[in-house]
Amino acid sequence: MIRTRLTETFGLDYPIVSAPMAKVAGGRLAAAVSRAGGLGLIGGGYCEVDWIETEFANAGNTAVGCGFITWRLAEAPQVLDAALDHGPRAVFLSFGDPRPFAERIHAAGAALICQVQTLNDARQAVEAGARVIVAQGGEAGGHGANRATLTLVPEVADLLRTGSPETLLLAAGGIADGRGLAAALMLGADGVLVGTRFCLSDEALIPPQFQQAGIAASGDQTVATKVVDIVRGYDWPERFRIRVLDNAFTARWQGDLDGLRADPAQHAAWAEGLAVGDPSVANPVLGEGIGLVNGSAPAAEIMKQMAHEAEALLAGGWDRRKS
Amino acid sequence: MIRTRLTETFGLDYPIVSAPMAKVAGGRLAAAVSRAGGLGLIGGGYCEVDWIETEFANAGNTAVGCGFITWRLAEAPQVLDAALDHGPRAVFLSFGDPRPFAERIHAAGAALICQVQTLNDARQAVEAGARVIVAQGGEAGGHGANRATLTLVPEVADLLRTGSPETLLLAAGGIADGRGLAAALMLGADGVLVGTRFCLSDEALIPPQFQQAGIAASGDQTVATKVVDIVRGYDWPERFRIRVLDNAFTARWQGDLDGLRADPAQHAAWAEGLAVGDPSVANPVLGEGIGLVNGSAPAAEIMKQMAHEAEALLAGGWDRRKS
Ligand SMILES: Cc1cc2nc3c(=O)[nH]c(=O)nc-3n(C[C@H](O)[C@H](O)[C@H](O)COP(=O)(O)O)c2cc1C
Ligand SMILES: Cc1cc2nc3c(=O)[nH]c(=O)nc-3n(C[C@H](O)[C@H](O)[C@H](O)COP(=O)(O)O)c2cc1C
Repeated sequence: MIRTRLTETFGLDYPIVSAPMAKVAGGRLAAAVSRAGGLGLIGGGYCEVDWIETEFANAGNTAVGCGFITWRLAEAPQVLDAALDHGPRAVFLSFGDPRPFAERIHAAGAALICQVQTLNDARQAVEAGARVIVAQGGEAGGHGANRATLTLVPEVADLLRTGSPETLLLAAGGIADGRGLAAALMLGADGVLVGTRFCLSDEALIPPQFQQAGIAASGDQTVATKVVDIVRGYDWPERFRIRVLDNAFTARWQGDLDGLRADPAQHAAWAEGLAVGDPSVANPVLGEGIGLVNGSAPAAEIMKQMAHEAEALLAGGWDRRKS
Repeated sequence: MIRTRLTETFGLDYPIVSAPMAKVAGGRLAAAVSRAGGLGLIGGGYCEVDWIETEFANAGNTAVGCGFITWRLAEAPQVLDAALDHGPRAVFLSFGDPRPFAERIHAAGAALICQVQTLNDARQAVEAGARVIVAQGGEAGGHGANRATLTLVPEVADLLRTGSPETLLLAAGGIADGRGLAAALMLGADGVLVGTRFCLSDEALIPPQFQQAGIAASGDQTVATKVVDIVRGYDWPERFRIRVLDNAFTARWQGDLDGLRADPAQHAAWAEGLAVGDPSVANPVLGEGIGLVNGSAPAAEIMKQMAHEAEALLAGGWDRRKS
């Protein structure tokens, strides 16, 4: 058993939180993660209230949390109330200033988890009274920024050690197996936030063809891009790009964003690819860690395996002299 | 003492290799690292024969290795002979196909170390008969590509486990303290290659103003760019960019590379900034790990501290529940 400040604070069996992946992390995945001894988060993402209601219902009586894309929440703040009405274990905010929302979350008794991409973000999260800060490297699946997990986590750990020692720290971005979990603990994290690996879980809301494409891919086949937000019509802040599996579509348009903006037929083609689950057109949202994933499994299996592998490494299994 | 396949193979006290940083890693730094119990490499970089001769002389009788930028070596292959004449401990190749040079290096009895940025690079390195493969993430100082250390190292480890189990593996990119070293071991590495941290050593060939700028910087203040190669007139292959400290110069030109190409006065201004050691004009070459560095020290001190910190973590110090 790996015991950390995270497992003790939240009463978990594993120091593993599942990422609130918009549209992919529904109530079934979040509940499976929580029931297996982690903390599961519903991906409230683009703030469709109906979706959130449905997915809290799918989580049933299991205690889960919910995550939001902060700059979208700023445009539709009432969605937060919808989530808070379900008494979520935690509310997770990423990609924007969390401070305007912190009071309501604290008042509702939910733990505030803030995902950060820079030291400045981390300072804002401390000001917002975050119980947990997630330092996210750009190798992550989904949106992210420039820093790498390996350097951002210890640098945020140093910031917290002097400035806010009670705040817990998670690592996110590229953690897909027990090696990544053990490495994160060495870097100063109390646990990990995992997205990509759970996209290859049985409970994820993701087309089987996308899962197959992920299993076949190496980590060299992802790209951080603006293409996918342009075709979806999402106006993301400049500093964030979305990491997806590279395909002919991103290869074609990555160098011609203005051309893509001006060509709505391409947006429709991408949407059609998504609707039929064709990964050669629509890009599965996955991070560099996909190269470490060789199959899909139930979420509980994934967690058990990650934790066992990490335990063995922490107990000395990292020494390869005799293997 | 951290014992790994690297320390056993090369008879080292620390699983630490210093990066062959062009112009920065001279014989004094390489020898200091080797004498302290690591493996020191001279930065043969852009292949100036005179510089290499001088720096092997500066290393004296201490056994060191030498590194080259492979695509430059392809343009000036005789430089390799100059290095091999000194009986280097190892020859380090990065940024290009190592296979054309492998035979001569093997014949000279030097260990071939290949730095790789993708799985394809790693396969070429295995074909070249590399004794050691260095998996380099793009958070590294100096040139690099897109992958992050945290995901590339375990993915290359998996490749080697099935395809070439005798090949040793190092992690490079963002490793600047004992936390990074311990994390690298968890990821499947036999040791680490360290550059940025040694730029802040007393033995590095780097202007004091650049060291001061590095100490003051956070890891958020680096940028991977083509700007610095354009002003220096280096024709680097498209997939590599150089990570440096961001400043007004890179901020101005990062979005206008064609404008910069067409403006030789800017190239001269940058060169002048370098000549006078002005980091507000010429960019110090440093990686994201710079945010973990708070001062300079002798190389031997740096290594001792990294190793002690890593040892403590490996012995259970990662557990922060009571601290
Ligand atoms: C399919 C997918 C969707 C995501 N959607 C969101 C989101 O809506 N909100 C958010 O904060 N993060 C989102 N992320 C990022 C995660 O919060 C997390 O940082 C990331 O998954 C961690 O890196 P990993 O994918 O390498 O495990 C998403 C990630 C993926 C893979
Ligand atoms: C100042 C500097 C110069 C570098 N020059 C070279 C070089 O000439 N050849 C090379 O293979 N790598 C070079 N590198 C990259 C290193 O080999 C290594 O990958 C990198 O320093 C590791 O990441 P770190 O800087 O975060 O420790 C250089 C790095 C720095 C910081």
